[in-house]
Amino acid sequence: MAVNLQVPAAADLNDVAGVRMGFAKAHIRKPDRKDVLVMSLAQGSSVSGVFTKNRFCAAPVQVCRTHLSAGAGIRALVINTGCANAGTGEPGLLDAQNTCQAVAKQLGLQTEQVLVFSTGVILERLPMDRLYAGIESAVAALGQANWLDAAQAIMTTDTLPKACSRKIQLAGKTVTVTGISKGAGMIRPNMATMLGYLATDAAIAQPLLDVWMKRLADRSFNRITIDGDTSTNDSFIAIATGSAGNPVIEDENHPDAAAVFAVLDEVSRWLAQAIVRDGEGATKFITVTVEQAGTEEEALKVAYAIAHSPLVKTAFFASDPNLGRILAAVGYAGIDDLDVAHVQLFLDDVWVAKDGGRHPDYREADGQRVMAKQDITVRVVLSRGDVSSTVWTCDFSHEYVSINADYRS
Amino acid sequence: MAVNLQVPAAADLNDVAGVRMGFAKAHIRKPDRKDVLVMSLAQGSSVSGVFTKNRFCAAPVQVCRTHLSAGAGIRALVINTGCANAGTGEPGLLDAQNTCQAVAKQLGLQTEQVLVFSTGVILERLPMDRLYAGIESAVAALGQANWLDAAQAIMTTDTLPKACSRKIQLAGKTVTVTGISKGAGMIRPNMATMLGYLATDAAIAQPLLDVWMKRLADRSFNRITIDGDTSTNDSFIAIATGSAGNPVIEDENHPDAAAVFAVLDEVSRWLAQAIVRDGEGATKFITVTVEQAGTEEEALKVAYAIAHSPLVKTAFFASDPNLGRILAAVGYAGIDDLDVAHVQLFLDDVWVAKDGGRHPDYREADGQRVMAKQDITVRVVLSRGDVSSTVWTCDFSHEYVSINADYRS
Repeated sequence: MAVNLQVPAAADLNDVAGVRMGFAKAHIRKPDRKDVLVMSLAQGSSVSGVFTKNRFCAAPVQVCRTHLSAGAGIRALVINTGCANAGTGEPGLLDAQNTCQAVAKQLGLQTEQVLVFSTGVILERLPMDRLYAGIESAVAALGQANWLDAAQAIMTTDTLPKACSRKIQLAGKTVTVTGISKGAGMIRPNMATMLGYLATDAAIAQPLLDVWMKRLADRSFNRITIDGDTSTNDSFIAIATGSAGNPVIEDENHPDAAAVFAVLDEVSRWLAQAIVRDGEGATKFITVTVEQAGTEEEALKVAYAIAHSPLVKTAFFASDPNLGRILAAVGYAGIDDLDVAHVQLFLDDVWVAKDGGRHPDYREADGQRVMAKQDITVRVVLSRGDVSSTVWTCDFSHEYVSINADYRS
Repeated sequence: MAVNLQVPAAADLNDVAGVRMGFAKAHIRKPDRKDVLVMSLAQGSSVSGVFTKNRFCAAPVQVCRTHLSAGAGIRALVINTGCANAGTGEPGLLDAQNTCQAVAKQLGLQTEQVLVFSTGVILERLPMDRLYAGIESAVAALGQANWLDAAQAIMTTDTLPKACSRKIQLAGKTVTVTGISKGAGMIRPNMATMLGYLATDAAIAQPLLDVWMKRLADRSFNRITIDGDTSTNDSFIAIATGSAGNPVIEDENHPDAAAVFAVLDEVSRWLAQAIVRDGEGATKFITVTVEQAGTEEEALKVAYAIAHSPLVKTAFFASDPNLGRILAAVGYAGIDDLDVAHVQLFLDDVWVAKDGGRHPDYREADGQRVMAKQDITVRVVLSRGDVSSTVWTCDFSHEYVSINADYRS
């Protein structure tokens, strides 16, 4: 049961010129589900990516980094679910390379022009024969899949496909941005078992897309958390095919730069937030904003301390305005010289804690009213500076335990 | 359902000469339960304490720190459950001081000679009238309570009282060490909603007890974690009444020092581990040992990354040898130059991951056999140095969510 999130209508998800897609049911782990997706990109596409910082990064992540830095021009992506090809050592690395090679061979590309992504159970090898067969089917079907199919093909424990699409006008040209993402647990800053793909037909120079990639991630996928775990396979990829025919956006001074970045940003944030709304067992979507921090680092420390606290998250699940738990999290966030006498806490519009203590006018009924909602904002004012940061998270429910206790069965 | 932990027999809990105790049912929050405990200590007792590092430390913690540093000699402790007197600002601080004053008046002491402890719901004021009445009853009953009563009187969501007692012989004198503790969630290094009281009749000089206090905490209460939250009220107190009549242990060179420290250490660890065994919803007791780390800091980073991971903890709950989740936690623990190719992972005696990948001889049935146990050791070998550290934690169950979602109802 995702929080205020619906299955997108296929008709609302605009094709992106220069991107063709095909999927297959390869039975990587489970029968009769879309589990292999191939994307073919127009020649000259700019492609950029950010990946998990987990030291146990999975084989496909290692291969992606190598292929992106090879500079041969990325022309295809292949994604499988069911098996993450992580913790598989040298043999797993070969499997990932062979997967790229198989796609390259089918499409007449070099192996270095293919990126590979895997998600699912870790410490197990990919069933390569079934994967090869799936790739063959997916390539044969290229162009017949739409973005909704694509969103479905990358799902694991997600309860619904996540996709978002926008169009803008640039000097007579229509530019489309469409993206898909998958979660659903193990999400936190620096990414987790999440995959995100953002595609536009705008022409954006590779160096600028690389700069934007980091900024987009730090405003979206790097600001979400579900359970504090980060995974071995997280990847967020941006693709600009250039097929829209707009003049290439070379740098930030280009007249179209701001508008294009804004729509990329909007879709990225939507895709990231959708992962939280469909967090494993989520019943609440919680925005945690920390204001008047001295630095971004301390704003994020406080925001994540709140967002990661199991006690805070279970209180949200229970719709219980046990706001002391939030204050406790602020207190242990690691700001050694925090003066709690200057800390203010708001729950939506309700001023709960004033100058570090319970606000004299706070009534439990007001807290209760906010906690009963599905979308809730926690706002902490530190009174130490002028930096604000926001992260998004969800509550912690019985369903979370069930999903993660039963994941492999 | 605590993990391999039983209610202690009152007869096994030896009185500590120089400590008298009394409890009352003061209806602080719930009717008909022991919720106020007073301890009276012999003149000349050495008393030392370590407290939460949460910046929102509760009023009683602030008062304890002040009274301990006043140096007037601590002669009494008063502990209430049901209300933590945290996030209560200046009025709460006055309540804590008045609580000490009430005890002092009853016992003919100075206010500075009394320590005060509160645990329970935060952001609410203490019901002072009921607390005063409870103190009066508890003081009137001093000496009639035993350590099992005391352990019961400090329980909150604990499912059973926690107490441990040992005796040793020192040059013809018998020395007793008896302690009590309470959990049950919100436990992590630098403490959490946990209270621990360790009492001995040995004569230990105050400066030495202060040194030992830190060392004892870092080998016990500072090495346990249940959900990663730390509370506003955590306190661990050591008392040495000197009533055993042994020659005062002035420093570490004293012939009795090693033996007395060892027994204090044994009881402290037992009390700390008992909190984990009775962690909210715990069904497994997990020892996480990190070996061959370069520094203690990195050993602890890895140990806590594993111990705090909700995905690892739910896998233990499910008895699922999903060991990739443990490797993922090692990978995101924050050791930037970790070479995963040198990481070994063991589950009890089973070598699961060799050189960063699945051990070729590992069979799921072996992992399953270990996971089915109630007491499990996770051992990670980093191959970076010669430092080892151990923390203790529990699994993450449906029951944890239920307890914390319903705590205030």
